[in-house]
Amino acid sequence: MVERRKPIRVSEAVNKVMAFAKRGNEEKVQLEHSYGRVLAEALRATHPVPPFDRSPYDGFAVRSCDTVHAGMDNPVSFQVIDEIGAGFVSEKKVGPFEAVRIMTGAKLPELCDCVIMLELVSEFACGGESWFSIKRSYRPGDNVSFQGEDTEEGTVIAEKGTYINPGVVANLATFGYQEVIAAKRPIVGVYATGTELLDVSDELQPGKIRNSNGHMVCAQIERAGAQARYFGTLPDDFDTCYDSVKQAAESVDMLITTGGVSVGDYDFLPAIYEKLGAEVLFNKVAMRPGSVTTVAVWNGKFLFGLSGNPSACYVGFELFTRPVIQNMLGSKTPHLRKARAILSEEFTKANPFTRFVRGKLSFSGTTLTAAPSGFNKSNAVTSLSLTDVFIVLPGGTRGFSAGDEVDVLLLEYCEGSEWPWD
Amino acid sequence: MVERRKPIRVSEAVNKVMAFAKRGNEEKVQLEHSYGRVLAEALRATHPVPPFDRSPYDGFAVRSCDTVHAGMDNPVSFQVIDEIGAGFVSEKKVGPFEAVRIMTGAKLPELCDCVIMLELVSEFACGGESWFSIKRSYRPGDNVSFQGEDTEEGTVIAEKGTYINPGVVANLATFGYQEVIAAKRPIVGVYATGTELLDVSDELQPGKIRNSNGHMVCAQIERAGAQARYFGTLPDDFDTCYDSVKQAAESVDMLITTGGVSVGDYDFLPAIYEKLGAEVLFNKVAMRPGSVTTVAVWNGKFLFGLSGNPSACYVGFELFTRPVIQNMLGSKTPHLRKARAILSEEFTKANPFTRFVRGKLSFSGTTLTAAPSGFNKSNAVTSLSLTDVFIVLPGGTRGFSAGDEVDVLLLEYCEGSEWPWD
Repeated sequence: MVERRKPIRVSEAVNKVMAFAKRGNEEKVQLEHSYGRVLAEALRATHPVPPFDRSPYDGFAVRSCDTVHAGMDNPVSFQVIDEIGAGFVSEKKVGPFEAVRIMTGAKLPELCDCVIMLELVSEFACGGESWFSIKRSYRPGDNVSFQGEDTEEGTVIAEKGTYINPGVVANLATFGYQEVIAAKRPIVGVYATGTELLDVSDELQPGKIRNSNGHMVCAQIERAGAQARYFGTLPDDFDTCYDSVKQAAESVDMLITTGGVSVGDYDFLPAIYEKLGAEVLFNKVAMRPGSVTTVAVWNGKFLFGLSGNPSACYVGFELFTRPVIQNMLGSKTPHLRKARAILSEEFTKANPFTRFVRGKLSFSGTTLTAAPSGFNKSNAVTSLSLTDVFIVLPGGTRGFSAGDEVDVLLLEYCEGSEWPWD
Repeated sequence: MVERRKPIRVSEAVNKVMAFAKRGNEEKVQLEHSYGRVLAEALRATHPVPPFDRSPYDGFAVRSCDTVHAGMDNPVSFQVIDEIGAGFVSEKKVGPFEAVRIMTGAKLPELCDCVIMLELVSEFACGGESWFSIKRSYRPGDNVSFQGEDTEEGTVIAEKGTYINPGVVANLATFGYQEVIAAKRPIVGVYATGTELLDVSDELQPGKIRNSNGHMVCAQIERAGAQARYFGTLPDDFDTCYDSVKQAAESVDMLITTGGVSVGDYDFLPAIYEKLGAEVLFNKVAMRPGSVTTVAVWNGKFLFGLSGNPSACYVGFELFTRPVIQNMLGSKTPHLRKARAILSEEFTKANPFTRFVRGKLSFSGTTLTAAPSGFNKSNAVTSLSLTDVFIVLPGGTRGFSAGDEVDVLLLEYCEGSEWPWD
């Protein structure tokens, strides 16, 4: 007998998943391994930036009051009483018409309040001493990078949950974070099920295909910021699948299976969830591809039953597994980044379910455009290599034309969206 | 005496660099480590996809000619003579009004030319045999995924130089690439120079700052697809710097130094390039920040002399080092991805040089917008953590207003541009 499943809306399915999503753990990570991770604590300015008044140029530090009468017809001379490179501090007390030769980044000597750029002085020697003259006046603060002008001490530079990009790394270094508290990358297990699956190194055999989903999903897991643990393939056999799924699920933070979630005689995942006593959140979503995507929770862990069709599997992961991973990492925007784009090619096939067309994003002037990436059936695999966006086509009775404005979900964008669907 | 340098245009500087850029080496990479790498050979379909005519559903494979008279008032019955799961091949010869129970993904039995979905039959038993009846007719090819409908054998799925995303991984697996020839990640050495530099773990000292550039650049190197080798910091001392730079440059594919490229008394890189006999491609670029960025070539290797100011250093890397790395990796689009965007905040400070304002990209409807990320001087560091785009403001006498259309260079986009500037 064919089981009748009631499809739920995509937004409802995402909602059900996120209701069970939890924050993950933290760990200390050395600064040099922090790039690409996620902050599990706010990054605070531990001192002002710059930490002291400093010179942004090579030049001479003086007291601006000594320059007030300088002009084209009235050169004013200064004696150079010290010279400091960046990293050094002058101990000299700078008096009237005295100057300190100062390099870019060096601390302004006490009593000095401006810097004269090297290019604007005439240097000369007098009585074995270094002198220079200037022909214009300076105001207090001229050519000075003031303490704290970039950032005050205590400012939050990056919130908890921020992706650590090279700029965040620069700030971690600036503020002395040799170690950083980062979100622990969850470990996501992967089993590909199906007697038809060959290993990648196997010769092709009649009726069989190589397992692409397992490897694809592992890459998606990495892209989503987690660690993949690949367990291999499983034949369509209930006992083998049950034992393997149970054991694997115990050893990881969440488990993905691909295949076996439909209503056929060889689709064992529903029965496995039942025997495990897992709570099935849904087993049918009003979407194409991936309508049979099933998500269950067992012992507080997610079991993602993704479709065996590559495109359906790919979409199911990005819609449901990615936000769970990103949420564990502490992201406040765990879903795929949503934007609007102009459809640059028609997509005529209507469907009552919401369609996630695998596509390619382009920029046309200041406008985002998107086009489907070739063959777009749920079992398509080659077009996935050209895919960097999902084009979201609401279910209905009509197709879509070039020029229509549509939602798109960006796949290669580090930053996510809070809640991409209504 | 102050050396006078003649600034060259950014596009000319990029041109000079790219004239020396070379392709890199290749290496074999296991499929499971291929995500994020770059293909050094084209990925070809080694067989058609699907590799055989197969069923996209659970159902019954029959000869369509036996269904032509079926209708609401004329049910036609079929005897089920075999059952095959995905991965198996039926050996039975299917005759008139005979059917094979077939699972999703299974090979269509010979002589059958269509599949009837499970949901659309009435099953019954008769004489110990399985039967079903249907009330509509089917045409040849109904519910069949045809051999090669996704891809023909020999098709190039992804060109040499393609970034290996999860979809490419799926295709590598499908076509039996247990190993893939990937571009070898160049090794990029990094030295941060400046006596003012403290290590990250050091307490702050008067006149000194912690070395942020070294760590930042290492992350930028990783983002650009290469491997960073961090050599540490160097004091402003000619002999130490010369020996260290020479030795480091010999051990890596290219070397980055930060700091010491200006015209001050403590800026030793120009003299080091001279003593090495390196060919200096340029030492002044008409850009802000980073006008002192210097690029030299020595023994066929690039020596990038980036500014010691964090923002200037960051920009110099992305404009000049990134494309060299990407070119070594075989990318045909080695430069930062260029797009157009609407400036959402004014930027009033005019400058004769082209300005690369560190900013943040947003989507407003289908329109790209960009805004400067806070404090934007060349020595700024905190705003880099919020930066995912350079806003390119051409040099001139005027500032820019909110609503102006500007070029932007995307920093977090895997895909690059062929040639971003005119």
